Amino acid sequence: MGDDTYWSRRRRGLLAPAGGARGAAQARGRDEPLDLLLVTHAANIFYLTGFRGSAGMLLVGPGEATLIVDARYVTAARRVLDEASAPGEPVVLAEVETSYEETLCELLRARGPCRLGIEADHMTLARYDWIERALVGSGVELHRTSGRVEERRFVKDPREVAILRAAGGRISAVMAEMLAGLRPGRRERDVAADIDWAVRRAGFEGPAFETIVAGGPNSALPHARPGDRELAAGDLVLLDFGGVHEGYCVDLTRVAALGQPPPRVVAWHDAVRAAHAAALAAVRPGVPAGEVDGAARNALAGRGLGDAFGHGTGHGLGIEVHEAPRIGKRRATDGPEDVRLAPGMVFTVEPGVYLPGEGGVRLEDDAVVTETGCELLTHVPLDLVVV
Amino acid sequence: MGDDTYWSRRRRGLLAPAGGARGAAQARGRDEPLDLLLVTHAANIFYLTGFRGSAGMLLVGPGEATLIVDARYVTAARRVLDEASAPGEPVVLAEVETSYEETLCELLRARGPCRLGIEADHMTLARYDWIERALVGSGVELHRTSGRVEERRFVKDPREVAILRAAGGRISAVMAEMLAGLRPGRRERDVAADIDWAVRRAGFEGPAFETIVAGGPNSALPHARPGDRELAAGDLVLLDFGGVHEGYCVDLTRVAALGQPPPRVVAWHDAVRAAHAAALAAVRPGVPAGEVDGAARNALAGRGLGDAFGHGTGHGLGIEVHEAPRIGKRRATDGPEDVRLAPGMVFTVEPGVYLPGEGGVRLEDDAVVTETGCELLTHVPLDLVVV
Repeated sequence: MGDDTYWSRRRRGLLAPAGGARGAAQARGRDEPLDLLLVTHAANIFYLTGFRGSAGMLLVGPGEATLIVDARYVTAARRVLDEASAPGEPVVLAEVETSYEETLCELLRARGPCRLGIEADHMTLARYDWIERALVGSGVELHRTSGRVEERRFVKDPREVAILRAAGGRISAVMAEMLAGLRPGRRERDVAADIDWAVRRAGFEGPAFETIVAGGPNSALPHARPGDRELAAGDLVLLDFGGVHEGYCVDLTRVAALGQPPPRVVAWHDAVRAAHAAALAAVRPGVPAGEVDGAARNALAGRGLGDAFGHGTGHGLGIEVHEAPRIGKRRATDGPEDVRLAPGMVFTVEPGVYLPGEGGVRLEDDAVVTETGCELLTHVPLDLVVV
Repeated sequence: MGDDTYWSRRRRGLLAPAGGARGAAQARGRDEPLDLLLVTHAANIFYLTGFRGSAGMLLVGPGEATLIVDARYVTAARRVLDEASAPGEPVVLAEVETSYEETLCELLRARGPCRLGIEADHMTLARYDWIERALVGSGVELHRTSGRVEERRFVKDPREVAILRAAGGRISAVMAEMLAGLRPGRRERDVAADIDWAVRRAGFEGPAFETIVAGGPNSALPHARPGDRELAAGDLVLLDFGGVHEGYCVDLTRVAALGQPPPRVVAWHDAVRAAHAAALAAVRPGVPAGEVDGAARNALAGRGLGDAFGHGTGHGLGIEVHEAPRIGKRRATDGPEDVRLAPGMVFTVEPGVYLPGEGGVRLEDDAVVTETGCELLTHVPLDLVVV
């Protein structure tokens, strides 16, 4: 196995049934052995091959994988596939003639009967229906799978942590600079433009999501869009932005006050800071993700602000800016068991309080779980900045 | 009906079966009358209500619609729903407690047996499976639909065209400025950062997609990512970027040469310019979209560059940067008939040639179909800019 590549190791074992608890494996469609796995989620394709495109399909078989791309990506795909291929497990390229679905089905029919896994979380019903109809009589059986690649992405390897650590340092520097530069009279959208420019100048490939600059009452909207409103003296200003570095996302939020804030605002900030600390203190291997959320929630409830915190405490970070593990309350659509934290998991901790019509505070950092607790990847003082 | 709103008019008739050709209606799931339509595609929700969020569900019924959002969006959603509601057709808000799927199913069970349409093109198989299981015994029947909202979005109304026209003018000004500012020695990613900043300063909400700055051999990659490569004398440099204005996207591509280009490059540019002109000349009401693509393709084939043009000639523009109509070759996954152009349809015309390892040229403009032909929404000279 000395000739494995970084990428081929990631593809190994994807077709095998899961060991471990049968209940959980069943719930994830992991108890069935497969002959082929069709990967259609772009983040998963990147994880398994290093190829990044807005479209593409990867067909993983035993000892070989086929990357299907359209003409826009053929040259770019060739560049990465030499690196992704291992002597015992090449990745071959197939170019789309008219549609991805047709090219896929031609390959499958040529290959003959098999058990094909599909990613049920990432395939639309219409695409599934089309493929199913096109394969009638081919002997190809479609099997739903869930999380086969994602469960590998939960825990970051040292290379991934190093990328995220470097990115966390860079985004922190941008935040410090942007907080210091806030001034009354500037429009939210112009501050956002400056942030996105600074994010790229700091070496990021681009923003990880739509940058949030929310002043005054807009800070009470957790997902505010920067608008034409001018920042005013007395405003709380919330900045939430991220960057993509070598394909990995970081995400950071702080608030600043334009002028000395009233005691009420200071109390919100203190409460969120306490919730942020409580959540981080709860992080260690073996802890269910929901306990970290509960720690933040209890801290806010203890200060009478439980109802002002509507979203989850955090989300996983990696190739996607929102990925597993989710640090929140359990939902009926979740699997039977909560994720237990393990070393190498990376996620945000971002409690907040939002008082509609008044304002809001959110404090967000990125953390990686270590053997004994966690390491922060972002480093900006948690004090309420007064500009 | 004098009390209708702009938004309530868009929702009218969504539940009715389509008139017209039965074959086409069947293929799109449009021959079935529905009691409710579940809209899960964010662009469609915006089209029907004015609400823009990264998450949300809209349940359209006769005389009422329900917008389901999570806590992050409740305040923002309240702001828009007064405007979206009409006296005869209010839009009510439902807040997610733990998951969208659960909240939806609770609402449906409370309402009782009905025929519920779902958007098969936008719902994952996993979500469909979950909802289907949760509704067993409820009397709610799930029916696949395709394109019920999108077919309304094909043709833009005068307000939408005005937004796109204003956006086209602005993006053109940014392009002219950015082409003029290209210089050897600058990194692709830094030029991209400048473009994104200029796009926002021009009044856009943000870039419409990841800005492409591709110099030298990178210009042969139709979807190149801006990297660390420095622009060099002799490079062809391709700039492809867009902006979002009031929720609508425009998209523009030009190339510049850093220094006098060799005759071969001039020939590529001339060929693409001829293909661009041929495609635009083919645009008029009643023409199948594929004919516009064919016109561009023939022009390039006539100059020996047919194989160098791998992608489609264009794509619809609107709330999404890629939407219907697609201006390309027919695919097996398309419906039974090609889209025929109609006044108010807006799309890009963007033929290109790509010579791997050497370079590429693409010229892209945005056009709206008029009664007699088309109107360009973008206005940058088509000459090869030599910087």
